[in-house]
Amino acid sequence: MEKVKITAGKLKGFSRLADTEGKFRMLAIDQRGSLQKMLADAIGKDKSAIGYKEIAMAKRLVTQALSPYFSATLMDPEYGVPESLKYLSRHSALLIATEKSGTEPFGYKGREKKTVLLEDWDVEKIKKLGADAVKLLLYYRPDSTPEVKEYQQDIVRFVGEECKKHDILFVLEPMSFAFMDDEPSSDSPQFARKKPEIVISTAREFSKEEYDVDILKLEFPVNLKFVQEFHKGTFDEKEREEVYSIKDAESACREITKVSRVPWVILSAGVDIEEFVYNVEIASNNGASGFLAGRAVWKEFTKHFPIEEDMLAWLLTSGVENYRQIYEASKKATPYYEHNFFKNFPNIEVADRGENWYREY
Amino acid sequence: MEKVKITAGKLKGFSRLADTEGKFRMLAIDQRGSLQKMLADAIGKDKSAIGYKEIAMAKRLVTQALSPYFSATLMDPEYGVPESLKYLSRHSALLIATEKSGTEPFGYKGREKKTVLLEDWDVEKIKKLGADAVKLLLYYRPDSTPEVKEYQQDIVRFVGEECKKHDILFVLEPMSFAFMDDEPSSDSPQFARKKPEIVISTAREFSKEEYDVDILKLEFPVNLKFVQEFHKGTFDEKEREEVYSIKDAESACREITKVSRVPWVILSAGVDIEEFVYNVEIASNNGASGFLAGRAVWKEFTKHFPIEEDMLAWLLTSGVENYRQIYEASKKATPYYEHNFFKNFPNIEVADRGENWYREY
Repeated sequence: MEKVKITAGKLKGFSRLADTEGKFRMLAIDQRGSLQKMLADAIGKDKSAIGYKEIAMAKRLVTQALSPYFSATLMDPEYGVPESLKYLSRHSALLIATEKSGTEPFGYKGREKKTVLLEDWDVEKIKKLGADAVKLLLYYRPDSTPEVKEYQQDIVRFVGEECKKHDILFVLEPMSFAFMDDEPSSDSPQFARKKPEIVISTAREFSKEEYDVDILKLEFPVNLKFVQEFHKGTFDEKEREEVYSIKDAESACREITKVSRVPWVILSAGVDIEEFVYNVEIASNNGASGFLAGRAVWKEFTKHFPIEEDMLAWLLTSGVENYRQIYEASKKATPYYEHNFFKNFPNIEVADRGENWYREY
Repeated sequence: MEKVKITAGKLKGFSRLADTEGKFRMLAIDQRGSLQKMLADAIGKDKSAIGYKEIAMAKRLVTQALSPYFSATLMDPEYGVPESLKYLSRHSALLIATEKSGTEPFGYKGREKKTVLLEDWDVEKIKKLGADAVKLLLYYRPDSTPEVKEYQQDIVRFVGEECKKHDILFVLEPMSFAFMDDEPSSDSPQFARKKPEIVISTAREFSKEEYDVDILKLEFPVNLKFVQEFHKGTFDEKEREEVYSIKDAESACREITKVSRVPWVILSAGVDIEEFVYNVEIASNNGASGFLAGRAVWKEFTKHFPIEEDMLAWLLTSGVENYRQIYEASKKATPYYEHNFFKNFPNIEVADRGENWYREY
């Protein structure tokens, strides 16, 4: 079998991000705007009541309490690195976000979304601080207006090139959203019906080699709140239309696995832990290589804001319990080196290995 | 107390290189010339009988068998990275050598030694491949001829600047040698008498801020084969003059701790494991922050060359046992963050932390 050649920096990144089983059990604490809102809600105030210090403190607590459990931790450079880096467990690899929090209105009736890279921040700096991977959150619809698609694809290409230049892993997180006239919201049956095709087609697009993506961080391809088994309000006591079944979720995950050139992981996008455990289990049983979990794991701790002690206590008990649940749910995840991209561990080798490697690197 | 400010990349490096106790339990497998000779000796042949493949194989076995035990592994870029990187445990941080193997004759009667940086290799490449630290082996005598000292110091300054630029840890390994007319060899009582002062004075020199060294990898400051307790041949059945006592070794280590601006670790320099365990214990009990151990841990496995299976079996049994012994011997090592440089963990913070950190980094 022909060997899969991979550059030293990218190989190092894969082995750091995954745990010793080759599975990605990763934590996201790079939320900015959404975390600010949660903290504000906890004290019944407006976002503006929550400043730098409060956000940084919340992130620090999550990093201290939970990073030792996860194979990698995703931080932002605004609050995360300067205030939490020293509390990152040495066993947890480090991913850093490259985009600005939030989006700008764009395209059709201003309802589409433009991703903006964080100013005065770049892949070179991410590499310099010793991170193992770069993460880009990209709002994306394969059925967007052409100008929007082109703009968003260009950003991915740009970040992909930079990551290649600095030999660091590139984790792309495409995120869908509702914007068409026939989609009242992302929590509508109309949007739920489109979601599998959106996620699959997005995975196919960014599997093209020209983007140089190394890991896809994907949404769960169906909205479980609309499946036969759960549509009567299992997760949030709100009844919804029955749009599909769990079998549809399974086959959508298998389809993602088929079209993804590189290993993929599931993201949590703010759903509750009960729902996320199903997401992780179905995805892991159908080809995903693990998860990159954010709010689903820790969001409830914000309810204890501003009492630091209570916030930490929640994280060290319920937060850790949430970790254990998704860890269990990901037992059958595909090790990254068994993904079709690598085939198996013995098949991997450093590109241009041999006596002259160091001269040519 | 005033905080100690440290850049993000250097902070990340410290926390990766040390284990969760803050102690450096590190493995060196960057030997090139000396490993080649050991393999040749094992089959009773000349060095020229041992090629790239054989050296790379030996290094790969050590990395596979032992890197999971050590908090960090030191590799070379010629054989190590291209052939062993994929086998490095994700729990073991990575240090990379920057110098060429061997030295060039220099200075007094051509008996002094010039360190040469490896051609077509540099700190930028070390950073690019995802390493956590740069290591420079430097032959050095504080009582060298001035031209030699200046040349060697310039190399350290150069590497220090590069490491600062790329925000990566700099581990300096100064190594003494005999060259004066009154020093028949490094295994002579004359040289043994001078050794404590050489090692202490070298640690003092490279503690100057201008060199930007982050960790000193030092020789044990006395030759234990000449101490009262062991001089009758304890380690190699060869009787030697009594030059000093274990108390002298202890006070020399305390003196190193006093003059070292940064944390220091002990190196093994090819002594047998029995002697090295004493080195590690005495150093750790007197201020060292751990060890960076090479041949003392694994050298005997070369005797089984070229039978790969036997080499691996030795490493997984005796090699691991050697690790356990030096781990035990380093129980009282000083966590890096308790070294005088940091004072304690709460005292450390990222330089320029705050809202504008990411802009200015």
